[in-house]
Amino acid sequence: MKKNNIVAGIDIGGTNTKVGLVTNSGNILCHALFKTGARDLYQQFLEKLEHQVKKLLATKQEEYELKAIGIGAPNANFNTGCMEYPVNFNWGEIIPLVDDVNKLFEVPVYLTNDANAAAIGELHFGAGKGMKNFVVLTLGTGLGSGIIVEGKLLVGEHGVAGEIGHISVDRNGRMCNCGLQGCLETYASVTGIRRTVFELIAAMREDSELRNISFNQMDGLAIADAALKGDVIAKKAFEFTGEVLGLKIANVVAVLDPEAIILTGGLTKAGNILLEPVRKSMERNLFKAYRGKIKVITSTLTGSDAVTGAAALAWSEI
Amino acid sequence: MKKNNIVAGIDIGGTNTKVGLVTNSGNILCHALFKTGARDLYQQFLEKLEHQVKKLLATKQEEYELKAIGIGAPNANFNTGCMEYPVNFNWGEIIPLVDDVNKLFEVPVYLTNDANAAAIGELHFGAGKGMKNFVVLTLGTGLGSGIIVEGKLLVGEHGVAGEIGHISVDRNGRMCNCGLQGCLETYASVTGIRRTVFELIAAMREDSELRNISFNQMDGLAIADAALKGDVIAKKAFEFTGEVLGLKIANVVAVLDPEAIILTGGLTKAGNILLEPVRKSMERNLFKAYRGKIKVITSTLTGSDAVTGAAALAWSEI
Repeated sequence: MKKNNIVAGIDIGGTNTKVGLVTNSGNILCHALFKTGARDLYQQFLEKLEHQVKKLLATKQEEYELKAIGIGAPNANFNTGCMEYPVNFNWGEIIPLVDDVNKLFEVPVYLTNDANAAAIGELHFGAGKGMKNFVVLTLGTGLGSGIIVEGKLLVGEHGVAGEIGHISVDRNGRMCNCGLQGCLETYASVTGIRRTVFELIAAMREDSELRNISFNQMDGLAIADAALKGDVIAKKAFEFTGEVLGLKIANVVAVLDPEAIILTGGLTKAGNILLEPVRKSMERNLFKAYRGKIKVITSTLTGSDAVTGAAALAWSEI
Repeated sequence: MKKNNIVAGIDIGGTNTKVGLVTNSGNILCHALFKTGARDLYQQFLEKLEHQVKKLLATKQEEYELKAIGIGAPNANFNTGCMEYPVNFNWGEIIPLVDDVNKLFEVPVYLTNDANAAAIGELHFGAGKGMKNFVVLTLGTGLGSGIIVEGKLLVGEHGVAGEIGHISVDRNGRMCNCGLQGCLETYASVTGIRRTVFELIAAMREDSELRNISFNQMDGLAIADAALKGDVIAKKAFEFTGEVLGLKIANVVAVLDPEAIILTGGLTKAGNILLEPVRKSMERNLFKAYRGKIKVITSTLTGSDAVTGAAALAWSEI
């Protein structure tokens, strides 16, 4: 019996790595998730990745044949096939992912920024379907971005366009893992809102259930839950985050004039608690010509958006 | 005798309007300059424009035939053919330039942002020749921008991409003509550096020849001349301007990943007094992946860059 073609989509995040086997219509046949171990050894990551993908392939090997692998990873360069200076990882400065994964599976491997992969996913299968100009912001451990211009991924001269997480909010502000100070991702990400909560806990007197959670154990959902229950500190943290993010979105709009900003990633699970202050702040800070014209929406892909995007990248290249 | 084709290029600036007759190799046959009168009546501007262009045409009418007109103007929308909410003009909110100029000359008229026209000019005839990804910033009365991505003008979803002059430096900062506060053009433009000089005159004790010039009479050259002679206030004004502009260029780079930033317009006549602090500040604020890779250069077109650009637009459309 002739086997059907399949690709693997891999989404490497600062906390978790997701892998899935994806058909050419964007259907995820099966998937798995494991801890990335961004602070551990790169070699350990490769071993976990090999194990997880081979396990998935084993369940489908009678019907499907692996044709290619698409990877989305932070600070990845499409041109070189490497992760370059990934600020939330301890794996070194230049990480030759394409070569290393190719050795493990012996199929073509394509790499892009995890947020670019998410943008390609939104373009083909998600909220960006039918749109020509939009920006995807992934609000997770960090803040990634993927930009679609005239229906195509904006790659840039050196292969690394779309590092919106590192535009400046306050150059004397919070220390960023990249070495700069006051980058947008130190405010508008899961890590960023945790930092805001801790600043507010230090500054304010109000009681809050968040005072019982350590920094390392606090996630975006805990803050969102508290805000929904009326927790003053949690609500203020979302308002501040939305204020900062909305202003910087307005600045990005003044460069690109997109149809929409699509938000995705862990922090967007908070829904309207985040979206409303973002929209309000963006609108207030937009140059006249853009006012009332720019949509801020959330991803319609569920959970594995970057896996689908990475797979879409692989399908579009083979 | 059969006449050769010619187009008119028109560059409408906040202070001056330049017109020229341009061949399809970018050669300006003849040109003229008149006061725009941005604060006077729009009808008066149209009369002056008609008079000046017809005078130029009269000198060439035996050899050349006008085929089209290209116009670069602030806040122009290519899609609608109108200037929309031009913040430094008293001509109304929506100004139907294409229709009105078409009535005067009865040839096709094409309109874009004055800075977009400059960018098209740089792409075809100037410092951007051979480049695929760059940003042109025009530092004149205001700050305009034109963005080239993969060899094409970035138009945007609504026809108004590239309003980099209105990204935020300090949302509690200087009042901008657009209604926002702290926009980049209130710092990095001829008007912006004048405001900086006056702030420094108020704050500092040092003697300066600039203390003898009124706000309305101070131009960029006077400040540059003073700086070259070692005037402390003038030097500090350029350093501050370069600092602000370099930081915001670094943020634009983090969106677009261009090969170069091309500076043009009145303020760039200051040369290295401006360029050096811009480069230093940009480099210091760039995300790692871009460091050492982004050129900041000045236009190689002399004076009439936006005229050539507007003409290039017309040639590319007919």
